[in-house]
Amino acid sequence: MKEIKIFCPGTIANISCGFDVMGVALDSVGDEMVIKKVATKGVKITELTGQHLPKDTHLNVAGVAGLALLAESDYDGGFEIKIHKKIKAGSGIGSSAASSSGAVWGMNKLLGNPFSKLQLVKFAMEGERLASGVAHADNVAPALFGGFTLIRSYEPLDIVQIPSPSQLFATVIHPQIEIKTSDSRKILKTSLSLEDGIKQWGNVGGLVAGLFMDDYDLISRSLVDHIVEPIRSMLIPGFDKIKSSAIESGALGCGISGSGPSIFALSQGKENAEKVRHSMKTVYQKIGIEYDVHVSPINIEGIKVI
Amino acid sequence: MKEIKIFCPGTIANISCGFDVMGVALDSVGDEMVIKKVATKGVKITELTGQHLPKDTHLNVAGVAGLALLAESDYDGGFEIKIHKKIKAGSGIGSSAASSSGAVWGMNKLLGNPFSKLQLVKFAMEGERLASGVAHADNVAPALFGGFTLIRSYEPLDIVQIPSPSQLFATVIHPQIEIKTSDSRKILKTSLSLEDGIKQWGNVGGLVAGLFMDDYDLISRSLVDHIVEPIRSMLIPGFDKIKSSAIESGALGCGISGSGPSIFALSQGKENAEKVRHSMKTVYQKIGIEYDVHVSPINIEGIKVI
Repeated sequence: MKEIKIFCPGTIANISCGFDVMGVALDSVGDEMVIKKVATKGVKITELTGQHLPKDTHLNVAGVAGLALLAESDYDGGFEIKIHKKIKAGSGIGSSAASSSGAVWGMNKLLGNPFSKLQLVKFAMEGERLASGVAHADNVAPALFGGFTLIRSYEPLDIVQIPSPSQLFATVIHPQIEIKTSDSRKILKTSLSLEDGIKQWGNVGGLVAGLFMDDYDLISRSLVDHIVEPIRSMLIPGFDKIKSSAIESGALGCGISGSGPSIFALSQGKENAEKVRHSMKTVYQKIGIEYDVHVSPINIEGIKVI
Repeated sequence: MKEIKIFCPGTIANISCGFDVMGVALDSVGDEMVIKKVATKGVKITELTGQHLPKDTHLNVAGVAGLALLAESDYDGGFEIKIHKKIKAGSGIGSSAASSSGAVWGMNKLLGNPFSKLQLVKFAMEGERLASGVAHADNVAPALFGGFTLIRSYEPLDIVQIPSPSQLFATVIHPQIEIKTSDSRKILKTSLSLEDGIKQWGNVGGLVAGLFMDDYDLISRSLVDHIVEPIRSMLIPGFDKIKSSAIESGALGCGISGSGPSIFALSQGKENAEKVRHSMKTVYQKIGIEYDVHVSPINIEGIKVI
């Protein structure tokens, strides 16, 4: 095998209570990439469609992540990468993570899988460092592992796969405004009250338990964020209205996808997720904000050959 | 049925990362109580052995919890309670919770179980309010539900049962010093860094996932507390030595039981738990501190008729 074409899923990081630790992969939102093994050393981005992003290896997240892998590999050739972006950069559903994870997953596959998924996460995190200044894993972990992931710890990196109840669907609406991840981190407070902390880890425990038990009510009760959402939501136009309309339409919960501006909702069943899509887009239509909106099952396998 | 004799388990609250939200019930450490239905209204403590504690209904946690139940009941008689304390008051393994939970569980049983376990937790919390000034549930929840419990939220009260891997054993050592729960709360900082918060909810998620998956390594990696233990452990003589000796002897983790001074360790298998017992008591023998030490399986049913 010299060349593969892969699907690289969009991802929702944080999932309300799980700030910086939880993420989930989407199935019907994602990029396509073609990775080719070549004799020439290094990583070359030969094609990039769908978004205006740099093709220079050192300025492209897929390039940087790929180089991180090559630095640890004894393979003495290189790779050419074609990236077809369908996830908009800056949307908050893991656009950079899809590219950096896709690059290292595809390269690893073509090399006969010498690296573990955990190692691939570390390589892909270098792409995230380029994109946002922080080598975070909350999008690359679900992109590479699939389903729900918990980053228990960064030092050492410890990623836990959490089961995905089969009837869980995501609705994601992306208002066409730009928030840089780095700006969105700057506005966060660097401390919190012990009282809010206790609520947050109670909810993280509840969310993880709910996912294990297919307990949609418990998942719903746990999708609460007392710490980050109240601050970050101020950057997102119409957030409160979108959230209340999603909940009224039957969503289990609703919150900011990653650092925004996309807003996600989780629902039990596709029909509910479609109702939520309708109610969310109605809000933005009334306010007059341009948007994209997607309904997606949970992607339980992560990146895959297509 | 007019009278029952019951076992009321000791409990470990917090379990390292799960401050104020997690707890677990013990099987071989606990009180005995005899609850009797009588015609005379109210709750009367007719016997109290093993500890010097007030028998006046309004000054006794079992009495106060029992009155909270009676206030919500249409039963027009009363109860007499005999309490045989085996758990030392102030030990940090839920002595007051065993009595208050036992009272309401036994009374509910004799009335034909009109109240749910969640309601019983609320009544028993009134006993905790008397004992420590705070109506907390982290000992009464595991005493009443058995096994591991997660308090996802207090408002509204939401308790989640978490599975208990069958090979999990607890070792608990109680240095004979007194720390009041109220004092132990006062020294806590009322805020924490966002960075520490993220670590803590990562670990809570990991602990819950590890318990669901019988993943002893993950449980072990998650038994970390960056927030409370570093402060509270200063009140407990020899804590660091006890902890390091427990870990060296093979414990999955070790921390403060509730607000202390007892120290707990969790181990995989009884043999390991016994090794940990030996290493812990050796430390206190060298320092010259009086102690009690117990090894116990996890109690998965909570309070039970004996």
